[in-house]
Amino acid sequence: MNIKAYMQSLGTAAREASRELARANSDVKNNALIAIAKQLDANRDTVLAANKLDMDNGRSNGLNDALLDRLELNNDRVDAMIEGLHQVAELPDPVGELTDLGTRPSGIKLAKMRVPLGVIGIIYESRPNVTIDAASLCLKSGNATILRGGSEAIESNQAIAHCISLGLTDAGLPNTAVQVINTTDRAAVGELITMTEFVDVIVPRGGKGLIERISADARVPVIKHLDGNCHVYIDEFADLDKAVAIAVNAKTHRYGVCNAMESLLVAESVAAKVLPLIATIYAEKSVEMRGCSESCKILPAISAASESDWSEEYLAPIAAIKVVAGIDEAIEHINTYSSQHTESIITEDTERGQRFIAEVDSSSVMINASTRFADGFEYGLGAEIGISTDKIHARGPVGLEGLTSQKWVVFGDGQIRQ
Amino acid sequence: MNIKAYMQSLGTAAREASRELARANSDVKNNALIAIAKQLDANRDTVLAANKLDMDNGRSNGLNDALLDRLELNNDRVDAMIEGLHQVAELPDPVGELTDLGTRPSGIKLAKMRVPLGVIGIIYESRPNVTIDAASLCLKSGNATILRGGSEAIESNQAIAHCISLGLTDAGLPNTAVQVINTTDRAAVGELITMTEFVDVIVPRGGKGLIERISADARVPVIKHLDGNCHVYIDEFADLDKAVAIAVNAKTHRYGVCNAMESLLVAESVAAKVLPLIATIYAEKSVEMRGCSESCKILPAISAASESDWSEEYLAPIAAIKVVAGIDEAIEHINTYSSQHTESIITEDTERGQRFIAEVDSSSVMINASTRFADGFEYGLGAEIGISTDKIHARGPVGLEGLTSQKWVVFGDGQIRQ
Repeated sequence: MNIKAYMQSLGTAAREASRELARANSDVKNNALIAIAKQLDANRDTVLAANKLDMDNGRSNGLNDALLDRLELNNDRVDAMIEGLHQVAELPDPVGELTDLGTRPSGIKLAKMRVPLGVIGIIYESRPNVTIDAASLCLKSGNATILRGGSEAIESNQAIAHCISLGLTDAGLPNTAVQVINTTDRAAVGELITMTEFVDVIVPRGGKGLIERISADARVPVIKHLDGNCHVYIDEFADLDKAVAIAVNAKTHRYGVCNAMESLLVAESVAAKVLPLIATIYAEKSVEMRGCSESCKILPAISAASESDWSEEYLAPIAAIKVVAGIDEAIEHINTYSSQHTESIITEDTERGQRFIAEVDSSSVMINASTRFADGFEYGLGAEIGISTDKIHARGPVGLEGLTSQKWVVFGDGQIRQ
Repeated sequence: MNIKAYMQSLGTAAREASRELARANSDVKNNALIAIAKQLDANRDTVLAANKLDMDNGRSNGLNDALLDRLELNNDRVDAMIEGLHQVAELPDPVGELTDLGTRPSGIKLAKMRVPLGVIGIIYESRPNVTIDAASLCLKSGNATILRGGSEAIESNQAIAHCISLGLTDAGLPNTAVQVINTTDRAAVGELITMTEFVDVIVPRGGKGLIERISADARVPVIKHLDGNCHVYIDEFADLDKAVAIAVNAKTHRYGVCNAMESLLVAESVAAKVLPLIATIYAEKSVEMRGCSESCKILPAISAASESDWSEEYLAPIAAIKVVAGIDEAIEHINTYSSQHTESIITEDTERGQRFIAEVDSSSVMINASTRFADGFEYGLGAEIGISTDKIHARGPVGLEGLTSQKWVVFGDGQIRQ
């Protein structure tokens, strides 16, 4: 198989389909989403049989239990994919929205119009449900998609791709609007991320290693979601009940997620009071604490943090603890070590809250709320393609709007430039 | 000189200054712009003397007249820089603007806040006035800047940099908020475009060659302005008076600019009527026409276009002419050959106008207006750092808003995730 020629053919077809999708109205796109859901339901046995092949191969290849769990499909998970398609169909369509309307002194009328990006390449790892999630968000936002799933999920992804293709055809859209790469050859990824004439943006979904590799080699712009080293700062004017509740929730609600708190900063004036309260609950939940020298004085039982702890995304029941002089040191520490994902200040002082929000350079900045709220569903985007830790284009949870851009539209009546 | 260490020191200082700029309110930033204008006026002789050195070196090095003209400063051009600083001071400050405010079912209040990008690297060619233009837009939008001008303008740029530094200090801002690289070593550019820890975005300003080189090597995101192969399409339902006026204005108002029309498309039903009218005026203005076979039948005197003419950005009194069957072929041709800068349809038919706007995938799409309107001043942005032909982050003229991003801000009252 000539991978370059294959990828170019996918690219050409995607570019062509993207023009048709850009024209498609909301009804057509919603009908396609629902038609895909129907095909997924009708072809459930085929999809589950394909997934069984992947699972058998995965076991023979020695995949660990966590990976096998992510790879596995069952009736509940297919139902969740179907439900997801219906939810995306119900979201408002961002395409075509006109903003910033105005008339210029020359007499031209001017506006910005929200338009699809064009063709989006998605690269992801083992979970086959991403095939549906990503395709549905791209489709709703009027973009053509080229998907590349993990090699361990190739059979499941091809079976799902077939359902998508049937659904698109049922709805009268080109079935090239969503294409799933049918080879596990790594060269296909290399082509996908460099064919700038056919692909407008790449969204990698997966571990930090995958995303760093893609970003290093891509010539196509990448919307990337790197790590979430999130902070909670308990200010000297914090309500300590809220502080304890949020420090516990942000760390222990779920461990393996990017919006979990990894480092807890505490103002020295309240540290002796609040840290023992938190330490008791962490101990009950078997959360390991790694503290600065001040924290270790207050909590002699905990281990000492090393410099590398301040940068760590543990994704585990571990928290780094640092006592800081006050808000200045907290902001400085966060802007130095954070991955610019999400940070929260606990304070009853409005001015300090405002300062934290203005000066902390992260995609989500919060006052008196758990970092766990930083996601597309909680923010009302309906669903997210990822959480961007980039600064340009889109920051934080990226929903439909992040998969679009705005072009300028000018309405004249024969105006020429003087 | 250790270029890497030098650039890292600029980067570190810029990152630090960017934090202070992000905090600075509009008054402080505006005062700095006006203080820079005052210093430029007070140090006018020094700046002009430095420029004379550059001009003398340029002549010895055999720079052509066009380059020398771009390099030259005189009292009028210094006045224009001073005026530009005052104009930027008068623009509204985009930073801090809150949009999309809402309350979520969890009780958290959510908004998007407009914030500076951080540190912007600008790479440009001979015109020293870009030093002031770019620095002022970045400063107003709260960003720190690292500027790298052309080697032929090094003396002028250093003299201007000194005025900027004095002005920043006068206004109480760190003079590292704007730094001009003081070496002509090319390795400095290589460092600037790859030090992702210190630089958030690169804006190259100059010829296509420069921008392609920068884009190919950059690891920092690039806001790029490549070529402007702009089209005017005269539809079968065009008002032919408007059509002639716009085809003439878009091509002949200025030749060397990116929003000049390069290709004229004409619906076959009106071609025989309108092309001779346009040809007469083009002939008077010595505009060379290169036509498709149909155009050559109507205008036997013109030369035949080759395939490469459809992609060409002439920046010269040359126009490619193509007769198309109608709007479908026009849109197809544009989406194939255009550089996605600016295209205009001339039609009195509203539906066709809407179709053109929806389906043409360019940063500015117009109805019945000259492509020459596609710029920051005409669009009311006040000034522009460039015209983006990218699709993500910002499309078309990029003003202050394009130098900012939006972060999510969450106001809670102790909310934790259930």
